[in-house]
Amino acid sequence: MLDHGTPRTEDIATLIASRRPGHSLPAALYTSAAVWHADCDTIFGRHWIAVGVTCDVPEAGDVMAIDIGPVSIVILRDDDDKLRAFHNVCAHRGARLVPPGRSVVGKLVCPYHQWTYDLDGALARAPHMGIDFDRSLHHLKPVALRDIGGLLYACLSDDPPADIEELAAVVEPRLAAYDLRNAKVAFEQDLIEEGNWKLTMENNRECYHCASNHPQLSLSFHAADFGYDPEGLTETEKAETNALLDAYASYEQYWRDEDMPFEAVEHTVGWPTNFRTQRLIIAGLGESQTPDTRAAVQIPLGQARKPWMGDVHLWGINSWNHVMSDHAVVFTAFPLGPDRTLVRTKWLVHAEAEEGEDYDLETLTAVWKTTNAEDAHLVGLAHRGICSPGYRPGPYSRYTERALDEFASWYVSRMQANGY
Amino acid sequence: MLDHGTPRTEDIATLIASRRPGHSLPAALYTSAAVWHADCDTIFGRHWIAVGVTCDVPEAGDVMAIDIGPVSIVILRDDDDKLRAFHNVCAHRGARLVPPGRSVVGKLVCPYHQWTYDLDGALARAPHMGIDFDRSLHHLKPVALRDIGGLLYACLSDDPPADIEELAAVVEPRLAAYDLRNAKVAFEQDLIEEGNWKLTMENNRECYHCASNHPQLSLSFHAADFGYDPEGLTETEKAETNALLDAYASYEQYWRDEDMPFEAVEHTVGWPTNFRTQRLIIAGLGESQTPDTRAAVQIPLGQARKPWMGDVHLWGINSWNHVMSDHAVVFTAFPLGPDRTLVRTKWLVHAEAEEGEDYDLETLTAVWKTTNAEDAHLVGLAHRGICSPGYRPGPYSRYTERALDEFASWYVSRMQANGY
Amino acid sequence: MLDHGTPRTEDIATLIASRRPGHSLPAALYTSAAVWHADCDTIFGRHWIAVGVTCDVPEAGDVMAIDIGPVSIVILRDDDDKLRAFHNVCAHRGARLVPPGRSVVGKLVCPYHQWTYDLDGALARAPHMGIDFDRSLHHLKPVALRDIGGLLYACLSDDPPADIEELAAVVEPRLAAYDLRNAKVAFEQDLIEEGNWKLTMENNRECYHCASNHPQLSLSFHAADFGYDPEGLTETEKAETNALLDAYASYEQYWRDEDMPFEAVEHTVGWPTNFRTQRLIIAGLGESQTPDTRAAVQIPLGQARKPWMGDVHLWGINSWNHVMSDHAVVFTAFPLGPDRTLVRTKWLVHAEAEEGEDYDLETLTAVWKTTNAEDAHLVGLAHRGICSPGYRPGPYSRYTERALDEFASWYVSRMQANGY
Repeated sequence: MLDHGTPRTEDIATLIASRRPGHSLPAALYTSAAVWHADCDTIFGRHWIAVGVTCDVPEAGDVMAIDIGPVSIVILRDDDDKLRAFHNVCAHRGARLVPPGRSVVGKLVCPYHQWTYDLDGALARAPHMGIDFDRSLHHLKPVALRDIGGLLYACLSDDPPADIEELAAVVEPRLAAYDLRNAKVAFEQDLIEEGNWKLTMENNRECYHCASNHPQLSLSFHAADFGYDPEGLTETEKAETNALLDAYASYEQYWRDEDMPFEAVEHTVGWPTNFRTQRLIIAGLGESQTPDTRAAVQIPLGQARKPWMGDVHLWGINSWNHVMSDHAVVFTAFPLGPDRTLVRTKWLVHAEAEEGEDYDLETLTAVWKTTNAEDAHLVGLAHRGICSPGYRPGPYSRYTERALDEFASWYVSRMQANGY
Repeated sequence: MLDHGTPRTEDIATLIASRRPGHSLPAALYTSAAVWHADCDTIFGRHWIAVGVTCDVPEAGDVMAIDIGPVSIVILRDDDDKLRAFHNVCAHRGARLVPPGRSVVGKLVCPYHQWTYDLDGALARAPHMGIDFDRSLHHLKPVALRDIGGLLYACLSDDPPADIEELAAVVEPRLAAYDLRNAKVAFEQDLIEEGNWKLTMENNRECYHCASNHPQLSLSFHAADFGYDPEGLTETEKAETNALLDAYASYEQYWRDEDMPFEAVEHTVGWPTNFRTQRLIIAGLGESQTPDTRAAVQIPLGQARKPWMGDVHLWGINSWNHVMSDHAVVFTAFPLGPDRTLVRTKWLVHAEAEEGEDYDLETLTAVWKTTNAEDAHLVGLAHRGICSPGYRPGPYSRYTERALDEFASWYVSRMQANGY
Repeated sequence: MLDHGTPRTEDIATLIASRRPGHSLPAALYTSAAVWHADCDTIFGRHWIAVGVTCDVPEAGDVMAIDIGPVSIVILRDDDDKLRAFHNVCAHRGARLVPPGRSVVGKLVCPYHQWTYDLDGALARAPHMGIDFDRSLHHLKPVALRDIGGLLYACLSDDPPADIEELAAVVEPRLAAYDLRNAKVAFEQDLIEEGNWKLTMENNRECYHCASNHPQLSLSFHAADFGYDPEGLTETEKAETNALLDAYASYEQYWRDEDMPFEAVEHTVGWPTNFRTQRLIIAGLGESQTPDTRAAVQIPLGQARKPWMGDVHLWGINSWNHVMSDHAVVFTAFPLGPDRTLVRTKWLVHAEAEEGEDYDLETLTAVWKTTNAEDAHLVGLAHRGICSPGYRPGPYSRYTERALDEFASWYVSRMQANGY
């Protein structure tokens, strides 16, 4: 606040109110530092944010520190196998307790003055503080944490939105067969996109850009799944689209018979917790998002031993996921600044799958490594263009960018619900 | 605005009003981020700014993207050989249309979603937008562009200053003989000076610093052309100055006979479009700004086949130029931040001159490459000093820094004329 | 001011008033850019700041430029051997006169336009300014400078705090025997800590963190000198502490007999000039802060030819010092930004001591090079943690962090005394 003058809240509110439905956001909502701080406070500070996967901390004493905007948190598994999260800040002089990434601990010991916390956050030892010092007043500040089907969501607010239960109710059964909780992280990639986090999310919510920009992804992905202009198709495209519709008819019958939930569930405008899920057909040979569209891992995830399971696709506020029979790809996006966003990608495989034996790491990761790099380039182009006074909010396609329009509407309503 | 609090305009106005004539500007006019943004909006946003040369885009379909502060524009030659400029921002989701530097296109195709524009800015194709989408509402935003004697000036304002006609009336005939429109760019250098753009311009408008800092330039340049204290000269300097005055008498007679305009024309305080031009004698052997003061290029520019044509010197708001019989050097300065300025230098030669045959590139570029590096160092020293609270606006020499005083007065008046 | 909106002063004042005694400061006092600027203006701009040592400029014409926050100053020894300091800004166009670090000059000549100053700051020459130019109005702006026992303090204010006399009265006699004025700088290290300058100073004012973080320093340093919880000691620690108390009884008798001042003098809350000094016992063999606790230099400093002289420890606003019989270590801290602080360390030895002969440089510098690196890591951890909204001001130990509580109280009172 101190570094941004007073009228910020009102200015942001005016800007938010000026958003024109059906159009991309006013420039400053993407580019302003004040808005970025407001986004960190509001969107990332008061909503359920995807932070990782259960198998990031598979054993008691496993600890992982991650940053959500300016906030560092520790996620850990305590001695009773319970997952917990805390602010990564010592209650004494504020030092970071745990270094970035993963580590293993008995207790949490602050490196500065050895204040020592149990894994439930209680202050167990504080040297030199005197005989009358009440340690119970100085526990670690807890952070709300939920494990939903092996995906971890944290909420920094003391009053987390209750509708996380709806995400759990929809997603838990859909992911059950894949047993992601007992999977392992085969590979993790951090990539910085030179753009606002909302551009990262917009980019992910449409496949309008796929055909021209993602030749490799397009082998396993049906861009038409994300909408198309029915009157703008060439004859060839019409034929392809009709074939895809036919395929869905068959697949959905199969999925229904095999008891695999597939229907699209959208939980967006009007709710704090924004998500969408649907089971999608994988293109080509239909098995996995790999260069040859075949499964990359010999051992399927969990009980996912059936063919044609497709891709359980799940979007969230700062995340997107593709869960397939042989592996899952989990993406989380964290704001680093108005014009910088971290995209963290994790490839999950069965815990017993061995690299080099059961899967080739390059084959497993090739499609999304390539696609991530292409998307980073596009997000950078969008951000740089929007920084120019020549930018005016442009029209979203009602066919291929409806989800972006809804994401923008959701963003506006969440900011307004939180005082802007 | 959002990131800078409210009272900015008033504060800047106060600061501008506090400028003391005959003295350098108050520190914050050089160092403040708020002022820098105001400069971008006002000076670079509402005046005619030098952006390049006609021969940057010699053929239909040639495109060049450049940044003017936070604004990226595209300059191109359309299929009818007409020069045009647009904001480099797609009307759809704001992505940069064209990468930095030069490229060749048939149409302008946005890399993000393939919105496609004709070279006149009309939106020719926008996939998936639906049958009722009115493309005519989504053309590229044009930018005013003028070609004056082969030098390009752009104005980002919708209401460009009309006095560009005076620049055209004065400069067009002076440059006619050199035919810069049909020259070619033999070399281009981008150099970042660690100082405010106004310090870059001040540095260029005096040669008080030349004798001690530019030994190489001084071989072909008469520092006395830019003023001297008549009472402070040593006997040797007096003799040199008298010799130069005699030389001008002879040269001017010759220039008059040969119909080469030479008189100084100053169009500074009181006008939006700030320029000064004069034909100068080249020192030494008098041919060109090269290490040995001889022409560096065998083929003269245009019809510049006469000896002793000297140096047509032209200053502008963000530019300076030296046009000689064998080559021209065109400098443009663009603000990158309060303390960073891009200086772009282009060496122009006859389109048919071949490197290695008709000119040696190192000989052609040596003087100004060296001089630019020296100037960058000086601008950095000035900027760092001005950042210190120990700085007070200092007195300009009435003899050697009159042009700086006028530039500062022009700056103050232009900011005031635009609401500060 | 311009870049920070209006209500800054009030906001900072509110923040400062909210500081809770016995606790670390509110986060924004460590992290805000506005507060950092206020600190530069107030603490570094209106107090006596340690800037170096007399033997940085041993000869007439020796010049040293250093930065105090955004201010660059020149410290020099003039032709009459008088030490002087000036703003490092030319009175003409504001260029930096002198490059960073040390140089030797006859006069101070501005590299830009050769304005030339005598070493007393008078403008001796200003070419092209005209016959009626009054050079006496354009001397260099002086900076107050004091040499206290060979340590240099500067004050940027025109009204420097008078209580520097108390520092002089206490410290001058304590340092006399070491003759630091005629020592030499054997080595100098610049290290950037990734934290606010107040965290650098807090870190230095306690040894609570030493046992776990400074194994090498702990060989020559008694952490107990900086406080301990008497009721929290193990039996072993109790025995050690009692032994140390006994040692002090013997040492102090010896110091009294030998006329070596040793008593702790504290001059902190309630005064502009904050300092504390005390003669400490060196642990181990008791000679010096070296890996084997023996003297590193064969020739003692000045007349420091007696054994068991211990360590004359001196803290200041931005400095700490250890003066031992064979060498002194002088630390100064300069703010580079809200989250960056320069720690400059100088190792002083007798001017005639020869490296390789009288001392081994690695042995001389090992302990504090290692300790500085360890401290930089800790300051970085503290700063990063405090940036998180999870930080709350934590309780200082009344036993081991009393000096921090006093430093924080001093800081609050100084800011309030200066308008916040």
